[in-house]
Amino acid sequence: MVEVCLTPALIHQHDLKGKLVLVVDIFRATSCMVSGIEHGVAAIKPVLEINECLAHGPLGYILAGERGGQKIEGFDLGNSPFEYQQEDLVGRKVCISTTNGTRTLLDSLDGDLIVIGAFLNFSATVHYITEMNMPVVVHCAGWKGMINLEDTYYAGALIEALSGNISGDAAELAHQLYISHAHNPLKLANKSAHAQRLTSFGLEKDITYCMQRDEAQSVLIYEDGHVISASHS
Amino acid sequence: MVEVCLTPALIHQHDLKGKLVLVVDIFRATSCMVSGIEHGVAAIKPVLEINECLAHGPLGYILAGERGGQKIEGFDLGNSPFEYQQEDLVGRKVCISTTNGTRTLLDSLDGDLIVIGAFLNFSATVHYITEMNMPVVVHCAGWKGMINLEDTYYAGALIEALSGNISGDAAELAHQLYISHAHNPLKLANKSAHAQRLTSFGLEKDITYCMQRDEAQSVLIYEDGHVISASHS
Repeated sequence: MVEVCLTPALIHQHDLKGKLVLVVDIFRATSCMVSGIEHGVAAIKPVLEINECLAHGPLGYILAGERGGQKIEGFDLGNSPFEYQQEDLVGRKVCISTTNGTRTLLDSLDGDLIVIGAFLNFSATVHYITEMNMPVVVHCAGWKGMINLEDTYYAGALIEALSGNISGDAAELAHQLYISHAHNPLKLANKSAHAQRLTSFGLEKDITYCMQRDEAQSVLIYEDGHVISASHS
Repeated sequence: MVEVCLTPALIHQHDLKGKLVLVVDIFRATSCMVSGIEHGVAAIKPVLEINECLAHGPLGYILAGERGGQKIEGFDLGNSPFEYQQEDLVGRKVCISTTNGTRTLLDSLDGDLIVIGAFLNFSATVHYITEMNMPVVVHCAGWKGMINLEDTYYAGALIEALSGNISGDAAELAHQLYISHAHNPLKLANKSAHAQRLTSFGLEKDITYCMQRDEAQSVLIYEDGHVISASHS
């Protein structure tokens, strides 16, 4: 059974107890996390505030994050998945704060199992969720509390891939969006207001990359305050 | 410019000042209002609570409303559009309280002009909105704070009919839902969880009726605490 929460502003409508919560922020926080873990980052600690991030610097964390789509001044990494593929990040811990994705993750912790997904590790995540055999809530990050197209589309793609029962009209809406654009994800993504904002920053290549499936085999879970590879848990 | 608010739980994200707010609750509050005004009801007063409704009885109002899809005990009318077509309602005032629709309407009052729409008076409403030439927020009632398919579909149909600019991914999502089901509204409606609840009460004919376009020519606005025909304002 799959439910979909289209924005963190509606997460209170979902009972997360006993469920697997799949957190998704395609543009770009969860795509960055997948990219980082796939390329050897040891763990990623999501925090809400810039100050919390800064406090992790002296503890050996790499500092990462964005506000308004731009890298936070003085931080090591912004919010582009390409930045998370650097060799000198292998084995390191990253502390990250983004506008939407980290908040969504931290609003998901009533779930019994928290999984972090993106198109980049789509099939690996589908396989893992199938193995876990738990009810699923897809928690879409949206943008500043509002619904967005790309996360909704991901939720629909997941429903299609799991081919199980769905619960609620939001899940049906996501599934219908996916079905009507199954063969042209980039066309759909480019209608997204957030994609248009990123394009205005010259970040088209991030959009194209984040919509690609199965660049990564890592499955990401949240455990003890950190996002890690499920194979290390 | 058209924005869409998919549930009253997200209405705080929209600035309604200077805008025309179009309130829609296809199953069934706004369909009932359209049906009533079209058949001669003088005015409909929406209120939140059953007690507020009861207080209007001694003032000569017909009492109407539902909870959980069923008529409120002791009330004159429930929430089926067919009930609002009785001849003895002509010229009368109705006071109504429903689970979703009346709350959505009363949460819309920051708008400069409040219009109440349904498929039953679709073309008349589109014509009126075009004449008004104001920015529009479609405020979908949803179900208990959650998104529903039928109101989202109506928002998409309106966007298609106005063929103007849209603002935000929720409007794009609604439009895509409409486009993918433009020729089969009943198939879409029957996927709705709320339609399935109504069907379980034996109300299939309400669903079919509420999805019909242009049974009515009345345009409904909210003025001085009442829903009335725009031609009487």
